[in-house]
Amino acid sequence: MSSNRGVVYMGTGKVEVQTIDFPKLVDPRGNKCNHGVILKIVSTNICGSDQHMVRGRTTAPIGMVLGHEITGEVIECGSDVQFIQQGDLVSVPFNVACGRCRNCEERHTDVCLNVNPDHPGGAYGYVDMGGWIGGQAEYVMVPYADFNLLKFPNKAQAMEKIPDLTCLTDILPTGYHGCVTAGVTSGSTVYIAGAGPVGLAAAASAQLLGAAVVIVGAGNPARLAHARSIGCETVDISKDASIAEQIEQILGVPEVDCAVDCVGFEAHGHGKNYDPKKGVPAIVLNTMMEVTRAGGAVGIPGLYVTEDPGAEDEAAKLGYLTMRFGLGWAKSLSFYTGQTPVKKYNRGLMMAILNDKIQIAKAVNVQVIPLEEAPQGYQAFDKGAAKKFVIDPHGSLK
Amino acid sequence: MSSNRGVVYMGTGKVEVQTIDFPKLVDPRGNKCNHGVILKIVSTNICGSDQHMVRGRTTAPIGMVLGHEITGEVIECGSDVQFIQQGDLVSVPFNVACGRCRNCEERHTDVCLNVNPDHPGGAYGYVDMGGWIGGQAEYVMVPYADFNLLKFPNKAQAMEKIPDLTCLTDILPTGYHGCVTAGVTSGSTVYIAGAGPVGLAAAASAQLLGAAVVIVGAGNPARLAHARSIGCETVDISKDASIAEQIEQILGVPEVDCAVDCVGFEAHGHGKNYDPKKGVPAIVLNTMMEVTRAGGAVGIPGLYVTEDPGAEDEAAKLGYLTMRFGLGWAKSLSFYTGQTPVKKYNRGLMMAILNDKIQIAKAVNVQVIPLEEAPQGYQAFDKGAAKKFVIDPHGSLK
Amino acid sequence: MSSNRGVVYMGTGKVEVQTIDFPKLVDPRGNKCNHGVILKIVSTNICGSDQHMVRGRTTAPIGMVLGHEITGEVIECGSDVQFIQQGDLVSVPFNVACGRCRNCEERHTDVCLNVNPDHPGGAYGYVDMGGWIGGQAEYVMVPYADFNLLKFPNKAQAMEKIPDLTCLTDILPTGYHGCVTAGVTSGSTVYIAGAGPVGLAAAASAQLLGAAVVIVGAGNPARLAHARSIGCETVDISKDASIAEQIEQILGVPEVDCAVDCVGFEAHGHGKNYDPKKGVPAIVLNTMMEVTRAGGAVGIPGLYVTEDPGAEDEAAKLGYLTMRFGLGWAKSLSFYTGQTPVKKYNRGLMMAILNDKIQIAKAVNVQVIPLEEAPQGYQAFDKGAAKKFVIDPHGSLK
Amino acid sequence: MSSNRGVVYMGTGKVEVQTIDFPKLVDPRGNKCNHGVILKIVSTNICGSDQHMVRGRTTAPIGMVLGHEITGEVIECGSDVQFIQQGDLVSVPFNVACGRCRNCEERHTDVCLNVNPDHPGGAYGYVDMGGWIGGQAEYVMVPYADFNLLKFPNKAQAMEKIPDLTCLTDILPTGYHGCVTAGVTSGSTVYIAGAGPVGLAAAASAQLLGAAVVIVGAGNPARLAHARSIGCETVDISKDASIAEQIEQILGVPEVDCAVDCVGFEAHGHGKNYDPKKGVPAIVLNTMMEVTRAGGAVGIPGLYVTEDPGAEDEAAKLGYLTMRFGLGWAKSLSFYTGQTPVKKYNRGLMMAILNDKIQIAKAVNVQVIPLEEAPQGYQAFDKGAAKKFVIDPHGSLK
Repeated sequence: MSSNRGVVYMGTGKVEVQTIDFPKLVDPRGNKCNHGVILKIVSTNICGSDQHMVRGRTTAPIGMVLGHEITGEVIECGSDVQFIQQGDLVSVPFNVACGRCRNCEERHTDVCLNVNPDHPGGAYGYVDMGGWIGGQAEYVMVPYADFNLLKFPNKAQAMEKIPDLTCLTDILPTGYHGCVTAGVTSGSTVYIAGAGPVGLAAAASAQLLGAAVVIVGAGNPARLAHARSIGCETVDISKDASIAEQIEQILGVPEVDCAVDCVGFEAHGHGKNYDPKKGVPAIVLNTMMEVTRAGGAVGIPGLYVTEDPGAEDEAAKLGYLTMRFGLGWAKSLSFYTGQTPVKKYNRGLMMAILNDKIQIAKAVNVQVIPLEEAPQGYQAFDKGAAKKFVIDPHGSLK
Repeated sequence: MSSNRGVVYMGTGKVEVQTIDFPKLVDPRGNKCNHGVILKIVSTNICGSDQHMVRGRTTAPIGMVLGHEITGEVIECGSDVQFIQQGDLVSVPFNVACGRCRNCEERHTDVCLNVNPDHPGGAYGYVDMGGWIGGQAEYVMVPYADFNLLKFPNKAQAMEKIPDLTCLTDILPTGYHGCVTAGVTSGSTVYIAGAGPVGLAAAASAQLLGAAVVIVGAGNPARLAHARSIGCETVDISKDASIAEQIEQILGVPEVDCAVDCVGFEAHGHGKNYDPKKGVPAIVLNTMMEVTRAGGAVGIPGLYVTEDPGAEDEAAKLGYLTMRFGLGWAKSLSFYTGQTPVKKYNRGLMMAILNDKIQIAKAVNVQVIPLEEAPQGYQAFDKGAAKKFVIDPHGSLK
Repeated sequence: MSSNRGVVYMGTGKVEVQTIDFPKLVDPRGNKCNHGVILKIVSTNICGSDQHMVRGRTTAPIGMVLGHEITGEVIECGSDVQFIQQGDLVSVPFNVACGRCRNCEERHTDVCLNVNPDHPGGAYGYVDMGGWIGGQAEYVMVPYADFNLLKFPNKAQAMEKIPDLTCLTDILPTGYHGCVTAGVTSGSTVYIAGAGPVGLAAAASAQLLGAAVVIVGAGNPARLAHARSIGCETVDISKDASIAEQIEQILGVPEVDCAVDCVGFEAHGHGKNYDPKKGVPAIVLNTMMEVTRAGGAVGIPGLYVTEDPGAEDEAAKLGYLTMRFGLGWAKSLSFYTGQTPVKKYNRGLMMAILNDKIQIAKAVNVQVIPLEEAPQGYQAFDKGAAKKFVIDPHGSLK
Repeated sequence: MSSNRGVVYMGTGKVEVQTIDFPKLVDPRGNKCNHGVILKIVSTNICGSDQHMVRGRTTAPIGMVLGHEITGEVIECGSDVQFIQQGDLVSVPFNVACGRCRNCEERHTDVCLNVNPDHPGGAYGYVDMGGWIGGQAEYVMVPYADFNLLKFPNKAQAMEKIPDLTCLTDILPTGYHGCVTAGVTSGSTVYIAGAGPVGLAAAASAQLLGAAVVIVGAGNPARLAHARSIGCETVDISKDASIAEQIEQILGVPEVDCAVDCVGFEAHGHGKNYDPKKGVPAIVLNTMMEVTRAGGAVGIPGLYVTEDPGAEDEAAKLGYLTMRFGLGWAKSLSFYTGQTPVKKYNRGLMMAILNDKIQIAKAVNVQVIPLEEAPQGYQAFDKGAAKKFVIDPHGSLK
C-alpha cells in the first residue's frame, strides 16, 4: 500500500504516469493534517483546465502531479476527523477549503482564505492553487475531510453509478453554477457557449433546472452532434450566420433569457474568422452581451486568467480583454465569475443522480480508461474528442 | 353574440348552467373598464376551491356565477388596452390585479389593493373576492387586460395544447408556488399533502424543479394510484403506519427537505382516525412540522379561512386552529401562506409546457366536458374522482 | 487557574454561584475535543431564556451550570485548533455547532446535526440542548473553536466596547435575525412585540437596517419609556385601545410592513385582559397576523416550546397553540421561526459596533455586575427591570 | 397655463431656456395617452448624465428639451388614470415604463419593452431613450401615470422636504441600487468611486444600509471635503499612493467588501496619470477588481455607453474597454450594470426621508436655482462644483 502512481506534468504537451510518493497527512507547507484523510481513488477525471497547463499556457512547474476531480474510498483518517470513517466512499470537491474562514462560512469555498498562501482559493494538482498534490493517481490526501468530503449514502449503489457520480467533483457543479448564476429556471431559454464537458454539463444542468430550450454553441461537429443527441439545440459558430441569427432561427427571437460561458479565454473567432488555432479571448463574453436579453444574466464558469503569457496580443498577456462592456451596461446585464463553490451544489446533484433525474455520464460522454492510458486520454481530449475521460486507477469500475 | 350561459351557484350542493348577462366593460362597482377586454372562453376549469363554496362552507350568495380558471380568445378591447389585441389567445390568472398598486409592483398580485373594496386580493366568481363575475361561461370580462393577460405566442400551437395550458390559470402556478416557497430544487426530497389537482400539480412542479423524490400523501386510492402513475412515491394516510413512518420506508429517514400542504383546512384524520367525512383542520399543518427536516420550509397553497361556519368545533368556526407551533419553532421552520401570485410563474410555466418539459394535463388527469355537463363535473369531483374537469364551452377543443 | 465558579440552577426560582469544575477539552459525551479551546470569560450575560428554566417551566436538571452568552480570552487551544490562538479575544455564538454537517454548511448553525444526540441544535448551559456546560462562570470550554469563535481584530479597542460587543453572542443577532426575516429594510415600518433585551435589540437592529418607523409594544412602563428614549414609538398593550388602533394613531394605518415577535409563548393578555401573571401563549402570534400588511412577513425569534408543563391549558402543555392561522393565510403572510444562527450575522454586527453604527449597550441598557451578584441579577430581571445584566466574572471591565 | 418654458440643448456646451410647447397627453409617436397626466413641476434637477449630452459626447439632437429628474403636482389626468388625482404631489422615476410588459413585471422598469421603439428602456429628455420630452421645464407629460408616479402621502409635509424628496427621481435610488447590488449591508466596508451627486448619494445610501465604513474616492478636493463632512472616509485618486494603499491606510487591509462605480466611462487616470482632461474609460472598473475582496460584488450605476464618438482611442469609440477581467474572475466577483429601476426603491427611500433617516439634500449639497439660471447651473456643475443643482421653475420652494 505504500506505492503510488500518478499523472505528472513534464513540460509543454507532455504528461507521464510515474511512481510518486504515497500521500501523508501533511499539507504543502509541511504541517501535520490531523483533519485529513487518505483516499484510495476510485475515479479521477481529466479536466479541460488541466489542458490549460499541459498546453504550456501557465507557469505550472515540471514534476507537478495533476488531477483535481477525485472520487475515492477512505483508507485512513486523521485524529481530528470525526464524521468521516474508514471505508466511506466519498466525492471530493475540487476546491480545497478549510471550512473555518469567513469565505467558507459564506459558502464561498472557491476562495477559501486559509489553503493557499498566495491568494484566496485552493485546488489539488493545479498551478498557483496552494500546492496540494493532485489526484490523477492511485492515492491522495484530502485535508479538512469532515468539511470537504461528501459521503455517498449507500456504497454499493454508488459504485454502480461512478461514471455519473465522478462528475460531482467539478464539471457538473460547475455547469450547474453557471446556469444558476445566469438565472436558469423553469421555462428559461438558455445559450451555452462551449460543447466540451463543462458546456455539456451546463446543458444537462439547464435541463434539470427545467429550461424550455437549451442551445449549445461550438465549432466542433462531433461535439455539436453529441449535444443534439441529448436534446439540445445547437449553434455552429463556424457558420457565416451570426450566433444571434442562429438563435433567432431556433427561438424566433435573437436573444435568450440566460447565457453561460463555458469556454473562457481560450476562445476562437466566429464565422469566417473561425480558426481553432487562433485565440480571440474576449469573443465569448462579447457574444454573450449581444445575445442575452435586457435584464438578463451571464454565468461565466469558463476560465479567465490574470496572466496569459501565451496570448497573441500584449494586453491579453497581462490578462486584459477588449470587452464591449457598454453594450452589457445598456442591457442592464449581471455577470457572475469565478470558480464554482462545489459544496454549494454537490449534495443536491448527488441526490438527482442517485434518483435518476440526470444522466450526466451520458451527457458528457464518459469514457473510462486505466491510469496508464492517461497520456493518451490527454491527447485525445486535446484534439477535441467529444468525450470526458475518467481514469480508473485501481480497475474498480467494471 | 349577445347571449351567454354560465355555471351558477344555487345553494348548498347545487350548481346550474343558466343564461346569464353578456359581459360588459364595467367593474363590479359599475365603473367603466376601458382597461378591460371581453373573452370568448376556450376552456375554464372546475377548481377544488369552487367546491368549498358549493359545499356551503362559505357565505357565497345564491346566483353567483362561478369560475376563476379561464383561457380564451379576445373578442373586444377597451380603449386603454394597448398591447393585447382582438384575436389574441390568452391565459387569465385567477387573481384579478390592477398592476398599479404597491402589492402588484412587488409581484404580490394575490393581494392587489385596488380590486376588492373589502380586503386585499380579488378573483373571478369567488365569494368575498371583489364581486368579479365568474368565467365558467361562454364569455367573460377581464379588467386591466394589458397587465393581467398572458398571450400565447402561437395561437395554432397553443390550441393543440389547451388541456395543458388551461392549467396555467391556477393549479399549475399554485402547485409550483407551493414547491418554490418550500424550497424545492434539484435533488430535494419533497412531501406533498393531497392528491387532488393542486397536489398533483405540485408533484409535477417538483419534478420540473428537479426534485430527487416526490412523495404524495392522500387517502383516496384512485388518486394515489394516479400519483404513482406519474412517477411519484405515495403515502396512504388511511394506513396505521404514521406518515413519518411511511416516509422513512421510502427515504430511509422520516423527514423530507420540503413540504407542501395542498389540502388546507378541509383535512381529515390520519390512520385509525381517517374519515373523509370528519374534518380535522390543523392536521396537515401539524404533520408538516413533524415530517419537515430542521431548517426546512413548508409551502402552504392549501386554503385556510378566516371564518369557517361549517366547522365542527367553535374555535375552527372563527378560523382558529390548534397548531403544534412549538415543534415547528424547535426545527427553525419557515411557513409560506396565501393565494398564489400567478403572474410570477405563468410565463415560465407556459414555456415549459410549449416545449414539452412538463405534461400537466396528464399529471392532473384532465377530462374535457361541455358546459352543460358542468353540474355532473362538480358532482364527480366532489366524490373524489381522480380527474381535473375542464369545461369547453364552445366545443373548441379537438 | 484550576479553580472555577459558576451560576448553578438549584430548582424553581433559585440560582446560586458555586465552585464548579475547571473546564476540560472534553465534550458532554466524554470525548476528547482537540478542536476546542478554554476561555477565560470577560463577560457573560443573563438571558430571558435562562428565566424560562429558572421559573421552572422546563425540565432543566438541578445542578446545571447556566449561561450561553459568552465573551472571553483564549487561554488554551486544543491540538487541532489552527486559526484561533492563545490570547485572542473572542465572541462565542450561543449555538454550539460543528461546522461540518449539512445544516452548518447551509448556515443553519442553529440546528447543527452533530452537537446534540437528542435533536438538531446545541447551546451552552441550556436544558435539552446537548449538555454543553454553561458559561456564566469564570472559565468555559468552547468546541470546534476555529468554526465557532469570532475573533475581535483589535483586543484593546474591543476591551473598551465589551458592553456592546457582549451583545453579539445572542440578543443582537437574535433581534437582527427577527428583523431580517420579517423583511425590514430601508424605509420599513416595523412592529416589535416585547421590550425586553431581545425586543430592544430588534428595535436597534431595525434602526440599523434603516427602518422608517420602529414601534415597540409591551406592558411594562419602564421598558416602554426606555424604548422611547432610543427613538422608538411605543404601543402599551395594557391600554384599552387595541394594538392595531395604537399603530394607526402612529402611522395613519393600522398595519406595519414587518412584524417581529420577541415575546414567544410566555405572553400575556392585552387591554382589559392584561395580566402579567396570566399566560396567553398564542396572543402575540395572533396579533402579528392582524397588524402585518398583506404580503408581509413575521419574524419569530421569541421562543415557542414543544412542551410546556407549566401552561394553564392542556393543549398548551403539549405545545399546541390556538392560532388564527386563516387570517395569516388570507393576507399571504410568511412566518420565520427558530433560534438564530448567530454566525450568519455576528461579523457584520461586530463591524457596525466597532465603527459606532449601533449603540446596543445603550439600547438594551446594559448593567455590569460581578459574578457573585448574578442571583440578584436574575431576580431583578425576573421582576421586569428595564436592564440587560452582564456578568463580569474577573472584574475585567473598567 | 398654456405657456411653458424649458431647458433646451443647443449644441456642444450650450443649453438655453426657451419657450416650448405646453405638454399634451400624446406620446412621442403621436398616440393619445389617456394613461398620462400633466404635471406642474415643483422641482427638476440637473444630472451628471445630462452633462454627457451637453459635452457633445452623444448624438443628442439640437432642440431637445432636457431633464429627467422631475417632481411635481398633477394638474390634469387622462381618462384612464384611476389612482392618481389632480392635486397629488408626486415623484417621477426617470425611467419611462409601461407597467405592462415582461420586464416591468419583473421589476426591470429600466428596460421596459414598450416605451422606446429602438431598444429596451425609456427616459425623459434623453438621447436615444424613446423621445419623451424632458422636464427641466414648467410643465411635463408623464405617461402610464398610475404605474409610474409615487404619490407623497402628505402634501404639506412633502413640500417642506422637496430638496430631499427631489433626489428620489434618480440619484438616490441610483446610488442605493449601486450599493444594494454590491451587497452593502450592516457592517460592510464600502468603496465608492466618484464624489459627484451619484457618488455622494451612494455614500448616504451605504450609511442608511448600515455600512461600517464608507470610503469615497475622487480627485476633486472640494468634493472630497464634502464627502468627509458627511462622515465618509476619502481616497484622493490624484495622490501617488494607489487606491488600494489608501484603503489599507483606512481599514488595515487593501480591500473592501463592496465596491460601487459611480463614475462610469468618463473616468480619468489615477496618481501621476491623474488628469481631469484625459479619459481612461476602464480605469474605475479595473480598480474595482483590484480593491474588492474575493467573493465580493461590484455595483456599476456609473454610465457605460455602446458608442462613444468622443473617445480618444478607436476601441473606446465603439464602446470597447480594456478590462482586466481575469483578475475579477480569479476573485469570483459579480458585476451588476445598467440604469436603476427607480420604482424598486423609491417608496422605501421616501419613507426614510419623511422619517428623517437620511439627509440626502445635505449629502449631495442641494442648491436650488430658478429655471432661468439653469444654464449657469450646467456650467458650474460641469466645472466640478460640489453641488447638486435643483431647478425650481415656479418659485414653489420656500
